[in-house]
Parts: sequence; structure tokens; C-alpha cells
Amino acid sequence: MDINQSTPVTTAEKIILGIDPGTNVMGYGVIRVEGNKASMVAMGVIEMQKIADGYLKLGHIFERVTGIISSYLPDELAIEAPFFGKNVQSMLKLGRAQGVAIAAAIQRGVPITEYEPKKIKVAITGNGAASKEQVAGMLQRMLHIPEEEMGKYMDATDALGAAYCHFIQMGTPKVEHSYKDWKSFVNQNKDKVHK
Amino acid sequence: MDINQSTPVTTAEKIILGIDPGTNVMGYGVIRVEGNKASMVAMGVIEMQKIADGYLKLGHIFERVTGIISSYLPDELAIEAPFFGKNVQSMLKLGRAQGVAIAAAIQRGVPITEYEPKKIKVAITGNGAASKEQVAGMLQRMLHIPEEEMGKYMDATDALGAAYCHFIQMGTPKVEHSYKDWKSFVNQNKDKVHK
Repeated sequence: MDINQSTPVTTAEKIILGIDPGTNVMGYGVIRVEGNKASMVAMGVIEMQKIADGYLKLGHIFERVTGIISSYLPDELAIEAPFFGKNVQSMLKLGRAQGVAIAAAIQRGVPITEYEPKKIKVAITGNGAASKEQVAGMLQRMLHIPEEEMGKYMDATDALGAAYCHFIQMGTPKVEHSYKDWKSFVNQNKDKVHK
Repeated sequence: MDINQSTPVTTAEKIILGIDPGTNVMGYGVIRVEGNKASMVAMGVIEMQKIADGYLKLGHIFERVTGIISSYLPDELAIEAPFFGKNVQSMLKLGRAQGVAIAAAIQRGVPITEYEPKKIKVAITGNGAASKEQVAGMLQRMLHIPEEEMGKYMDATDALGAAYCHFIQMGTPKVEHSYKDWKSFVNQNKDKVHK
């Protein structure tokens, strides 16, 4: 057998949804993993600039992420999640956007893993300081994405990158910040859950 | 009739849920409003200190808030929401906790209003620098809460305060940061929603 040890080996098909939640633009990318091969299923951008009310933006994120999960039935969700930002106000807003997206996944029992932007860049290009264009170029080649699709949804690059990063990480035994299914956790750890 | 102009006048009964979302402790308080009178229905604290995983904490908040909404069927949700904090890391975590609580309300179509801690203190005690004990004492008297209940759930004070603050604000014509029901917004503003 000629299997590269550095790539993940899985037998069953898996669908990974990557999202890059933001308060004004949310990118998403869906990839299908078969064995050690990954291909792009869908990518897109949800724009919320014209929604003035903050709650309506959050409602929109919740409804759209729920809808995307219903459409593609992902086995896993990977989130692009910066842990540090410029100011507390923007981090609170970002946290809320992440929170509603996370809630949509929790509601459907989809396990969540998050990746820092730098980790995604390293996983895809080998360089933590790679430009958005370099990351997009690598993803385009590795996932065989048509040029026009990539150009149209440039804001979905980080989301697609998170999904691809998760595909690569799946081959490693331990995944950081991994979320185990809520119901199974409750069943296995009744003493840890405070009602 | 002897109705004080400064208190709200409503005819139908209303249930207001107040929550104070945090990453380690979440307080909640439920009040019933009849005419211009309010009374306490329930108050409690959800403790998450022993849940190590951040996602499991968020899952717990989502499930509990969804459960509380199912139990008390609130007409409105009032959130105690600080807009500024010490560091970006804690604000991101707080934002996530708020986000999942907001998602639980959005999912059930419960309109959300948020109040800054200072505004709640002013509404209840007339003093923005009032201590937690002063706020608790006023709420206890105004809502006729037994001493032991108040002592047992001191961490629910801010949540109950948010609900009471919302009751007082309901009498004023314009409420800040008001969230209108998502579905009715979509129906009324199809051009504003980007699919």
C-alpha cells in the first residue's frame, strides 16, 4: 500500500462544514472526505451588511447555519476562530456571532472543532503568514475548485480552509478544542452536568 | 382610577424572562406582569464551573435556556449585557455565552431586549452605583420574594433585575436595542434580508 503517513486515512465518507462567522459577512465551505481524498461540495457567503439590527443579524446567522446543516448534513463542523482581536466591543460581537453558529450546530448534534487562523494557514500552505490569495490558490488546486467559483466567493476561503484544516487534523490522534456530542456527554457524565 | 403615570399600564398578562448569561454561572428570573403589577414566578442559577469544555458549557446554556423558555413560555426576554469588559478574551467568551442564549430565544421567536448593568440599577434603585445587596433588597420588596429564596439565588439577582427593568421600560414608548420577531421582520422586510 502506498499511503502517505502524513495524510489522514478514513474509510467512510464524511462531510465537513467549515464556517467563518463574522457579524457582517459569514463564509461557509462544505467538503466531502472519502478515504484520504477531499473535494469541495459547496461554498458561499452570507452577507449581512444591510441588516441594521444586531439581533436580526444573529437571527439570520442562526437560520442560515441551521439551513446549511439541514442541506448538507455535515458530520463535523470546523470554525475559523480568532482568539484575540483589537477591542472588547468587536470581540463581544464576534463572540455572539460565533455563539449562535455554535448553537445551531449543538442543536443538530454536530461536533465542533475550532482552529485559529494561523493554524489553518500552516495546515494548508505550511506558512502561518501566507496571504489570503496563497491560501485560496492552494485550496483551489487541492479541492479542484473552478476559477470562477473561487473568485466569486473569496470571503468563503477562510471557512473552506477551516474545513480542509479539519480534514488534515482528523488524521492526527488528538484534536484540540474538540466538542463531543452533547447528548452522549450527558449520558456518559451525568455527575458533571448541573441541572 | 389611581394609576401612577410613571408605571407601565398593560391589560393582558405578560411573562418576562430575565437572564444574566455568563460562562461559569448563568442566572435567570421569571416575572409575571398583570396590569401595572409584577410578581416573581421563578428564579434560579445554572452553575457550570465543573464543566471543563467550553462547548459543553455553551451546549448546557443552550439546552437550559431552551428548557426555561419551554417551561415558562415568556413573552419577552431581557438580557443583562455589559458592553465593555477587561480583556478581549473574556469578552469573546461572554459574547459566545450571550450568543447561544440569544439563539435559544430566536429559535422560539421570543423578542429580546438587553440592558446594561447600570441601567438596571438605575431602574430599580434610582442609583447606578447601587450594590448587589441594595438591588436584591429592592427586588425582594417589590416582587414579594421570600428571604430564603433571595439568599439561595443571589446570583440570579441581575437576571431578575433585567426582567424587572424591562417591565418598567415597557411603559415607555421606545425601547432601545429592541429585537422584533424574526419571522415577522422577514415577512415585512423581504428586501432587507439577504438569502
